[in-house]
Amino acid sequence: MGTLLVVGSVALDTVKTPFGAVEEVLGGSATYFSTSASYFADVNLIAVVGEDFPSQHLMFLKSRNIDLAGLERRPGATFRWKGEYSHQLNEARTLDTKLNVFETFRPKIPEAYRAPDVLFLGNIDPELQLDVLNKLPRPPLVACDTMNFWINGKRDALWRVLEKVDILIINDGEARALGEDSNLVKVAQKVLARGPKHLIIKRGEYGVLMFNEKQVFGAPAFPLEDVRDPTGAGDTFAGGFLGHLAATGNRSAEAFKQAIVFGSVMASFTVEAFSLDRLRILDYKEIQERFKAFKRLTHFEDLP
Amino acid sequence: MGTLLVVGSVALDTVKTPFGAVEEVLGGSATYFSTSASYFADVNLIAVVGEDFPSQHLMFLKSRNIDLAGLERRPGATFRWKGEYSHQLNEARTLDTKLNVFETFRPKIPEAYRAPDVLFLGNIDPELQLDVLNKLPRPPLVACDTMNFWINGKRDALWRVLEKVDILIINDGEARALGEDSNLVKVAQKVLARGPKHLIIKRGEYGVLMFNEKQVFGAPAFPLEDVRDPTGAGDTFAGGFLGHLAATGNRSAEAFKQAIVFGSVMASFTVEAFSLDRLRILDYKEIQERFKAFKRLTHFEDLP
Repeated sequence: MGTLLVVGSVALDTVKTPFGAVEEVLGGSATYFSTSASYFADVNLIAVVGEDFPSQHLMFLKSRNIDLAGLERRPGATFRWKGEYSHQLNEARTLDTKLNVFETFRPKIPEAYRAPDVLFLGNIDPELQLDVLNKLPRPPLVACDTMNFWINGKRDALWRVLEKVDILIINDGEARALGEDSNLVKVAQKVLARGPKHLIIKRGEYGVLMFNEKQVFGAPAFPLEDVRDPTGAGDTFAGGFLGHLAATGNRSAEAFKQAIVFGSVMASFTVEAFSLDRLRILDYKEIQERFKAFKRLTHFEDLP
Repeated sequence: MGTLLVVGSVALDTVKTPFGAVEEVLGGSATYFSTSASYFADVNLIAVVGEDFPSQHLMFLKSRNIDLAGLERRPGATFRWKGEYSHQLNEARTLDTKLNVFETFRPKIPEAYRAPDVLFLGNIDPELQLDVLNKLPRPPLVACDTMNFWINGKRDALWRVLEKVDILIINDGEARALGEDSNLVKVAQKVLARGPKHLIIKRGEYGVLMFNEKQVFGAPAFPLEDVRDPTGAGDTFAGGFLGHLAATGNRSAEAFKQAIVFGSVMASFTVEAFSLDRLRILDYKEIQERFKAFKRLTHFEDLP
């Protein structure tokens, strides 16, 4: 089993969708990522929480075998996010963000974390992403996420990060903003020319596209009868994707495609319930079954 | 080779996209459908044009071996549509519609057209779709299209049509309006319970979903570097899909899935140029090559 190091946010979320509402539940990009990846690989988590962070959440993360030596606990309050979704469920409307202890987050890397098989730089300030990269021997595989706030506000620092990573995982709106083009194929050409060997574009309910030098791979999202809360789907996807790559150590085109499907499978579970509630009760057999259902969803016979 | 009968519109389009503009070019749902289907099956076309319809367009349709005995020529002007697309290219903004001779269109069915293998009822008044169904012995396979105008304005007549068809082909916005639910899986359950055995939901640049009793099949759209004009993509998809089914006579689940891919392949060509310009110079070898590229785009190995 490989080891995955993730740097990102742990938060308390207040979320409303047409199917319900929850307050101060476990959330954050690194939380979704770690929990998802924990089904595939050993996960080391670097993040920060405040004094108010409920111990039952720590116990849950420990129950998933996630190493918390890098989870700093600081004076002050935990990062809070409040958002709501309309019936379309495609984009959250942020009602409130309180960075709290996350505002002054400076990732500290425990000695035991210095040689991961895979590093995932969650959506944080590109300067901090660079800082993490400079503090570590180059891991065999490095992936990162970002958001429009950094694409627009710290474009130069972000490109310096991208020159050093293997995989960029973003959504379609972010891809268009980064590549300054509405056509995703052209965006991919621009991004791949400047560093990352793989560009993965998440399209919510419409699925995922992966571009690299050799191929384009496209997967629809798994059609679900009950989608309750899309929060964390993208980070859950990244966790399943990189978790599979960390677990197998295989870097073939085929391994990347299967990893995309594992990521999509994990995301399809997350959206079935609020917070991480579906992942709490998930077992590996269900993951395998949905992978096979995904194969049936997309498979057709080639021409002779 | 099977025979396909299509009833729909032939139009002259004026279209503007971020990549160019054209005036009074060949368009119309039945035109795109017929031309696409003509690569797979014999096509009989029922539609109406005015006295001003350019003869070179008739010659083009004839060059595709489309039978025009059912293309009525009436006093007055041909149906005109004027629209434009923003950079997103996902939805047209209609600037002007002049129905002209199409306003009083009453489909007349030539004797030679009475026994098609497949019937496609294009997007016309559901009362006229019913009229066509009542005038013919039931063809082995019947598909139809519709639009929000009829879903909202003639819902009862439309459901009477749907009770008599095998396949409904609509876009995602139309599906949500028809099923009165934002969740497409729930929409599919409602629609399949009331008549059609297959529901095909077109999602533009995001691809297609097909629902039936036995399965769900999802295909992404083929990622293209140059998308110039999405006009007609949905009708081109339907033409390739039903053309393949008409050609093979095979009604297996596998044949339906390959038909979805053929439809997607044909649509991917149409959007590369304005009007039917890409289809004019297309050959069957290119279709086969893109089918194979589509297989590479979506294929991954199942779990052992």
